[in-house]
Amino acid sequence: MVLSKGIQGANVYIVLLHHPVLNKAGDTIASAVTPLDLHDISRAGRTYGVRRFFVVTPLTDQKELVQQVIDHWITGYGATFNPSRREALKLIALADTLEVAKECIRADGHGEPTVVVTSSRAHSTGTSYQTLRQMLGDGRPYLLVFGTAWGLTPEVIENADICLKPIRGGANDYNHLSVRSAATAVLDRLLGY
Amino acid sequence: MVLSKGIQGANVYIVLLHHPVLNKAGDTIASAVTPLDLHDISRAGRTYGVRRFFVVTPLTDQKELVQQVIDHWITGYGATFNPSRREALKLIALADTLEVAKECIRADGHGEPTVVVTSSRAHSTGTSYQTLRQMLGDGRPYLLVFGTAWGLTPEVIENADICLKPIRGGANDYNHLSVRSAATAVLDRLLGY
Repeated sequence: MVLSKGIQGANVYIVLLHHPVLNKAGDTIASAVTPLDLHDISRAGRTYGVRRFFVVTPLTDQKELVQQVIDHWITGYGATFNPSRREALKLIALADTLEVAKECIRADGHGEPTVVVTSSRAHSTGTSYQTLRQMLGDGRPYLLVFGTAWGLTPEVIENADICLKPIRGGANDYNHLSVRSAATAVLDRLLGY
Repeated sequence: MVLSKGIQGANVYIVLLHHPVLNKAGDTIASAVTPLDLHDISRAGRTYGVRRFFVVTPLTDQKELVQQVIDHWITGYGATFNPSRREALKLIALADTLEVAKECIRADGHGEPTVVVTSSRAHSTGTSYQTLRQMLGDGRPYLLVFGTAWGLTPEVIENADICLKPIRGGANDYNHLSVRSAATAVLDRLLGY
């Protein structure tokens, strides 16, 4: 592995999608928010220089939960207890849908975001991390979409501009990283050094 | 980044250390076990072909907590609800100390483990991931040690055989990955493809 330097000027955004995603039976659902996803993915996002971390859910009570976590760490007790956590959680923005997140990115003025999906079930014919890493230097916005629960629906995957290869590690086909771990590994491959 | 293939025959072990580690004030403490660490790191360990994941704590109540999690997912309800989670959690072994974990690795018969530490505060003069990745092909046992709370004590770092470079990602010095994320990024750099 050769990671000689970081990517200068990369405009990378993250979506953590809670709807539409699959459940264990393959039905399309809206999943519950896991507070630790917010912490781990915002910390990774901040470490790897991500512009914004969109938590996408249409559910009012779940948006309230996200807002409670943000408030505690940004303006509440957590802000003074752990300032570096505050820095991370400031990356989070709520969005009702993936399309709303894309609208917000367009409003940042760097153009239309290229939507990138990752899936443990993706074909090995997907785009390589090396290829996408090189693309990130063009300064255009890239939106990495991670699915919760049992993963992204086929429609979300088919509508993406880029589907990355699945992450592999061992000698067999076991590939059950948590979304927190998967997001970290993807960010490290794309932006780490 | 070039990850053309996995490492054949690597003997990689993980320790998640709860004592001795540092607290926020820099004192040496025994930290509480975070159940999600067990899930995320065992899932990553299983994905990247790790031999065993030692959860090191000397505290009786914390060992009981770990055992409860293991029991639920290996022989309890969780085993049938989510068999892939069962596969991951089977990697976990409890050990009172880092030395006990090393003894267990020696008993596997591949020789003395090389102890590898990672630290976000490590000097950039540490060993590169590429160098260690090449070493892993020699079939000898390597033990990756990850610290909980505010990280490994200076003594643990100084007594290690190898100290890896810190993981970097962004344009600044922000580096506050969770131990779950850090373990995933390290495993991906060493064993991913």
